[in-house]
Amino acid sequence: MSVQIATAKLESFKAYVRKMKQYEEAIALIYWDMRTGAPKKGIGTRSEVVGELSTEVFRMSTSDEMGEYLAFFTQPAELEQLDTISRKMVEECKKEYDRSKKIPAEKYQAYVVLTSQAESAWEDAKHNSDWASFQPYLEKIVATTQEFIELWGYEGHKYNTLLDMYEPGMTVEKLDEVFGTLREKAVPLLQRIQASPNQPDRSFLDQQFEISKQKQFSLSILKQMQYDFEAGRLDETVHPFATALNPGDVRITTRYLPNDITSALFGTIHEGGHALYEQNISDDLVGTNLCTGTSMGIHESQSRFWENVIGRSKAFWDRYYGELQTTFSPQIDQVDVDTFYKAINHIEPSLIRIEADELTYNLHIMIRYELEKGLFNGTIAVADLPAAWNAKYEEYLGVTPPNDGEGVLQDVHWSGGAFGYFPSYALGNMYAAQFTQTLRQELPAFDSLIAEGNLAPIKEWLTEKVYKHGKLLTPNEIIREVTGEELNPEYLVQYLEEKYKSVYGI
Amino acid sequence: MSVQIATAKLESFKAYVRKMKQYEEAIALIYWDMRTGAPKKGIGTRSEVVGELSTEVFRMSTSDEMGEYLAFFTQPAELEQLDTISRKMVEECKKEYDRSKKIPAEKYQAYVVLTSQAESAWEDAKHNSDWASFQPYLEKIVATTQEFIELWGYEGHKYNTLLDMYEPGMTVEKLDEVFGTLREKAVPLLQRIQASPNQPDRSFLDQQFEISKQKQFSLSILKQMQYDFEAGRLDETVHPFATALNPGDVRITTRYLPNDITSALFGTIHEGGHALYEQNISDDLVGTNLCTGTSMGIHESQSRFWENVIGRSKAFWDRYYGELQTTFSPQIDQVDVDTFYKAINHIEPSLIRIEADELTYNLHIMIRYELEKGLFNGTIAVADLPAAWNAKYEEYLGVTPPNDGEGVLQDVHWSGGAFGYFPSYALGNMYAAQFTQTLRQELPAFDSLIAEGNLAPIKEWLTEKVYKHGKLLTPNEIIREVTGEELNPEYLVQYLEEKYKSVYGI
Repeated sequence: MSVQIATAKLESFKAYVRKMKQYEEAIALIYWDMRTGAPKKGIGTRSEVVGELSTEVFRMSTSDEMGEYLAFFTQPAELEQLDTISRKMVEECKKEYDRSKKIPAEKYQAYVVLTSQAESAWEDAKHNSDWASFQPYLEKIVATTQEFIELWGYEGHKYNTLLDMYEPGMTVEKLDEVFGTLREKAVPLLQRIQASPNQPDRSFLDQQFEISKQKQFSLSILKQMQYDFEAGRLDETVHPFATALNPGDVRITTRYLPNDITSALFGTIHEGGHALYEQNISDDLVGTNLCTGTSMGIHESQSRFWENVIGRSKAFWDRYYGELQTTFSPQIDQVDVDTFYKAINHIEPSLIRIEADELTYNLHIMIRYELEKGLFNGTIAVADLPAAWNAKYEEYLGVTPPNDGEGVLQDVHWSGGAFGYFPSYALGNMYAAQFTQTLRQELPAFDSLIAEGNLAPIKEWLTEKVYKHGKLLTPNEIIREVTGEELNPEYLVQYLEEKYKSVYGI
Repeated sequence: MSVQIATAKLESFKAYVRKMKQYEEAIALIYWDMRTGAPKKGIGTRSEVVGELSTEVFRMSTSDEMGEYLAFFTQPAELEQLDTISRKMVEECKKEYDRSKKIPAEKYQAYVVLTSQAESAWEDAKHNSDWASFQPYLEKIVATTQEFIELWGYEGHKYNTLLDMYEPGMTVEKLDEVFGTLREKAVPLLQRIQASPNQPDRSFLDQQFEISKQKQFSLSILKQMQYDFEAGRLDETVHPFATALNPGDVRITTRYLPNDITSALFGTIHEGGHALYEQNISDDLVGTNLCTGTSMGIHESQSRFWENVIGRSKAFWDRYYGELQTTFSPQIDQVDVDTFYKAINHIEPSLIRIEADELTYNLHIMIRYELEKGLFNGTIAVADLPAAWNAKYEEYLGVTPPNDGEGVLQDVHWSGGAFGYFPSYALGNMYAAQFTQTLRQELPAFDSLIAEGNLAPIKEWLTEKVYKHGKLLTPNEIIREVTGEELNPEYLVQYLEEKYKSVYGI
């Protein structure tokens, strides 16, 4: 009898979670539409629709009904009887429920209003390089986040509780260690590269490339990567993104620049990597809260893997450069594949994170990480950020922003209170390199598969090891199960050293 | 104190209705997306999302909470204190609530399943011209609808309660009268047209017209009609439609046929007419259940007005034919505007409603009306429909379907139980002609405005008289307030006689 009750309750809990997912799917479609072509006069009313649906999802995630399900299923005797998927579903709901319940509703509401105002203020501040106008907002956001951390509770460093939101299980202790190793090797490598006499010729990239041809080539590469166009589509937008509505509908957007062939090309492959992850989550997980990538870092590992490990490799262009030349003929007919390969792997310290190359990108992230850590352990005040930012840029990258718009104000994240998010980008690079190491061992023909344009076995390997699990495994479980060890930055260091030795002849 | 309570209750009622509208907006966007480009592998899960949201809207429309609002506000003392919009909102909710509440839930559920199966069965039956396989479904649908009519109750003819769902206030008595007049004039007019020696030359239409140019011209005409592209967009689909998400986002779809220039052109203008109505509903009504066209007939009057009264007029082509020639040059360079005008106003009895011309279209509708009326007053059995259909086609149009696929099975409506819908199409033509008569009196420069390409005053007149009111006025209130009299089929008769006298020289 008790088993029957528990079974009925489990069905009912799963239906409840499925309903939340259905609302989230509707919301995700509305966002996609707003960012790809919704007429502007309808946006005001549409935003209220999103607000209503989002409120309902939040209400459901913190309702008494949810509380009762969780109180029941987290009883040890009940929890241990659940199948793996149901147990993980309960644990994920519980984590979110506890986090939300600890913040008084009116405090959270005020925070939502604050960050919404701050995002607007940030846009103006960035545009005008006017730090002073943004500082008061950021001070309030940091102070509120400090309060939230106290309410949520934390182990070890306070910043851990923020990291955990984006990369479950990640800590300052671990990040200090891996970023320390990476920086120790990356900075001297960068110096050797800068000192090399073999700087790539990039002059041929400086021409106009017809957008319809860029589009045609992007579509062709997505097909080659095994992106499933019956389970997705490619559209244009201002700030490219991938969005998973369900595994049968994972959409990519891109942006074509007439004077830059690389932007849409690598942007599309990057978003395509995110999309492959979501398209290949196991059918078992559809309609559960596990039907998504397990963390921002693992997600980014897939976009980076496809963009950089595959898309900027010599083997890849040995296969596809002819097609690129034909597409744009005669524009790059006189440029050989080696020259092209080196040009797209050009390394140069720069001011703007989103334009950074594969090597220096990690240094941009470390700077943000150091500053965020300082904000939450009290060693850096918000008012000190511009000076601290500039000093770090000089120290790590040897460049100094001419103004705060190109410096401390360049990223949107802080205005939305997204502290703890930045490390995911560098973690993505490290995970990608570590996965690649194992992949090369298990698929020794890796380079020749790429050179043959046979990317399917690579996608299948990743599906089996990473994609299909969705959120059923934690990031740490995945990296250990796939590669046999914890996150280890040495693989990224080795990858970068080998790659740039050949590109720069150092 | 009582006033304060009533005011608070009214706010709460309006918020409740607004929430229902917000859910409906999300559902409408999902449908638009499914019909314009959603990847097919996501459709299964997406359909469940629609199911969940639709269930919620239905639940809200029949909930105890809704019941309490209605019990309170329909008290005469409360109702009379309400402002016009709130009163009408209450009345509309009450009408829907009563209708839904009268059908036992399990009976309605069975009906939904039945019509869903019947639509599938109809598709096959139409494809195979196999009436026998569809007949049992239609018998069950008619029987269930008969039961519903008894539960809903009716005044006069049973069919009135079905008509009222699409055209509030319309009755068999009125339809018999107006259709009778129309048929009495239309049939002899058709005979004179068929006997005329001046048949239009349509040979030049039989060529390939490049789709990109068809699209360019359609977009240009939509702009001229004052369709607001900041409050809408044009996409492609298989079965064209217009959908109003909110007045700031009213989308049109069309279908381009390479060998038929008129299909997308007049289809786009038709949907554009529906869209103009919805784009120009008053801001006061946004978020209420009145923010939509007042009936199917009045809606159709606007699509027909723009498609036929404007789009197939001589004045219109005097203005735009040059642009059409230039767009497709040299394909119709040798065809003069008069020849073109006559070709697009060609009249010919045919088998298929959706391909019918302006005159015979009404006869196709009358046939369906006569048959539906017979089904519900018991003079026609479902089994008799094919023979009755063919006899009516012979009588009204002088043609006989070679098979049931091109006859009684041609339309989807009956398989979905949409009895009472067809008359709206012919009502639309009658309303359009009647509005035009008044419009010509109030804007005497009507023809020259069109010939100058100055369509804005026409759109503004319609906005003031029809569009802005949404569902605040009934169809009958609108036709009386705008034209000073009840629906009168003589205006359509006059319009058709004058137009075809000139086209056919009769």
